Amino acid sequence: MMPELDPWGSSDIEDYAKLFDEFGIQPFEEILGSIENPHMLMRRKIVFGHRDLERVLDAKRKGERFALVSGMMPSGKMHFGHKMVVDQLMWWQDLGTPLYIPIASVEAYGVREKSLDEVERLGIEEYLVNYIALGLRPDNCTVYFQEKRRAVDTLALLFSRRVTFNELRAIYGELSPAKIVSALVQVGDILHPQLQEYEGPCPVVVPVGADQDPHIRLTRDIASRASSEFGFQPCAATYHRFNSGLDGGKMSSSKPSSYIALTETLKDARYKLMNAFTGGRDTLKEQKELGGRPDICTVYELMKLHLEPDDAKLENTFRTCAAGELMCGDCKKCAWDLLERFLVEHQEKREKARDRIEEYLVKE
Amino acid sequence: MMPELDPWGSSDIEDYAKLFDEFGIQPFEEILGSIENPHMLMRRKIVFGHRDLERVLDAKRKGERFALVSGMMPSGKMHFGHKMVVDQLMWWQDLGTPLYIPIASVEAYGVREKSLDEVERLGIEEYLVNYIALGLRPDNCTVYFQEKRRAVDTLALLFSRRVTFNELRAIYGELSPAKIVSALVQVGDILHPQLQEYEGPCPVVVPVGADQDPHIRLTRDIASRASSEFGFQPCAATYHRFNSGLDGGKMSSSKPSSYIALTETLKDARYKLMNAFTGGRDTLKEQKELGGRPDICTVYELMKLHLEPDDAKLENTFRTCAAGELMCGDCKKCAWDLLERFLVEHQEKREKARDRIEEYLVKE
Repeated sequence: MMPELDPWGSSDIEDYAKLFDEFGIQPFEEILGSIENPHMLMRRKIVFGHRDLERVLDAKRKGERFALVSGMMPSGKMHFGHKMVVDQLMWWQDLGTPLYIPIASVEAYGVREKSLDEVERLGIEEYLVNYIALGLRPDNCTVYFQEKRRAVDTLALLFSRRVTFNELRAIYGELSPAKIVSALVQVGDILHPQLQEYEGPCPVVVPVGADQDPHIRLTRDIASRASSEFGFQPCAATYHRFNSGLDGGKMSSSKPSSYIALTETLKDARYKLMNAFTGGRDTLKEQKELGGRPDICTVYELMKLHLEPDDAKLENTFRTCAAGELMCGDCKKCAWDLLERFLVEHQEKREKARDRIEEYLVKE
Repeated sequence: MMPELDPWGSSDIEDYAKLFDEFGIQPFEEILGSIENPHMLMRRKIVFGHRDLERVLDAKRKGERFALVSGMMPSGKMHFGHKMVVDQLMWWQDLGTPLYIPIASVEAYGVREKSLDEVERLGIEEYLVNYIALGLRPDNCTVYFQEKRRAVDTLALLFSRRVTFNELRAIYGELSPAKIVSALVQVGDILHPQLQEYEGPCPVVVPVGADQDPHIRLTRDIASRASSEFGFQPCAATYHRFNSGLDGGKMSSSKPSSYIALTETLKDARYKLMNAFTGGRDTLKEQKELGGRPDICTVYELMKLHLEPDDAKLENTFRTCAAGELMCGDCKKCAWDLLERFLVEHQEKREKARDRIEEYLVKE
């Protein structure tokens, strides 16, 4: 018997169940109905959880202030796994949300031991340029390097009083001075929009991958402890699932076969896609009899998360695969058409994006 | 037999000997002869050691750049123990040295858990006002609060990469996130004048009490490790002895009977002086026969470190005491005349100093 499959479901969603039970993350489904025109990743249950998002949506409804913080880590090539969060930024931008986008240069320098020159190059050339090409607009959008952002740095220093080694160990495992500083700066990133010189105290949402929740919890705890002094509200958050690696494992910057970079050459991208792990059966005959397994297929996942915006078309791919009507070869050809078009257009947009960096990046 | 006594010697100088042997601090005496018009505290061997001071003096001779950093900790009342370092600042200022004076607000807030308002009040009202009244001039003198000094904060964050828990434990004993941040900010204080936007790489001297050497060593180590990146030279330092407490123990802000504050009322100051621990004998008869012990007398120490600028007069006090000619009552009366005049004049100067704060304090 085939398990009952849902084109919008995830075979591994149970892995996330303990985030609900143990850590108090709320299922996103419970508020999905109250969100007008939800983002594709919300609709498709890739965004699966949240904390306090009602406060943000309430503020929007009442015309009160709210904001978003979303960092980028300039540690290597930006790939489709990173793209998910950027896609959500534009949705928030359409709602009129002020966006604060730190480039995590203190962490890249301190913990990952990159040089400041390399951090600056990666942050701009590999990340910001991709963000702009993906559609990030400059209005109400502040991109900054952490060590140049005065308010963030000040808060990071002061917050050292509000945190213990135990809390930091929960995030970083083995500690070092650089990891401690890096965590404090990240808390400064998330809370600084609530300073009077920016938005003032207000709900601030942080869209993150599920693994980032310890940072969110730490920030919420520090916000509570410092609230009598600064008036900060605990941050809100949304949580999205990971993009699986093309090899069926984790997508990881340190394993090039697991990802397609946004600057990948067409030749390399095609090779990676054609060799990606699918839900295909061992033989064509078996596939026709049993149907494919789109629920574990990384090519289907690529279409679902990134390449196929049309729900009906995506659902059709899912059904015909599971019914044994669509074979992997044909499916990959379709996926490649979408991927090729995306990469060609994206890489053209990157060229234009380079001239617009100054519209986004603030000096402090 | 009386031990052979030296009016300029210290009975406890041997306590400092291990600083020479174990940690490589150089005896100040070896370079005293090469210093033109040395400060009273140098002449009187209160400044007993140094590191790399030749580099600073060389730069002065050659007309090259050099600078000084000296922090103040706004944790309580400023007393005569704190005054010693300020007295030296004016000597350096006469040499044309640019002075950088951090108010250690990050440490006071993070480690001593004072509020930011209290830190600001103490930093200005209790410390800066006293510094100005003591004679600090505004030319080439930069006073700042640590968390507002952008370059310092940036360096502190970046230096987290260059330091280990073990090194920090050597300074603070038991660690906390706030202590780590506080140490890094202090290193930022000492090294930031060597950034291009200030003096550029150059010898920087830090006059400190002997207990501050771990900070100096840490700063020198980090300067070496970061030299290929920033071009920093290791800082130089001078070391002075502590001012003993009036009760014969340590002078400590947490023990009001041990110190006279610069804002002490005349009544309280007189009471503390009259009850101070002296080198007097049990009876007048004994004192006349054996002589007093100026080498362990806190009243003599007050005159030597602060109240009697005239070497000949001070020497006479020492000799007549040791010879059994000067009794404690008369000596204290002399000391009180000097102390009273100092306090009255100083407190008048404080009133005028308040209007001049803005000439010293920078906003970032």
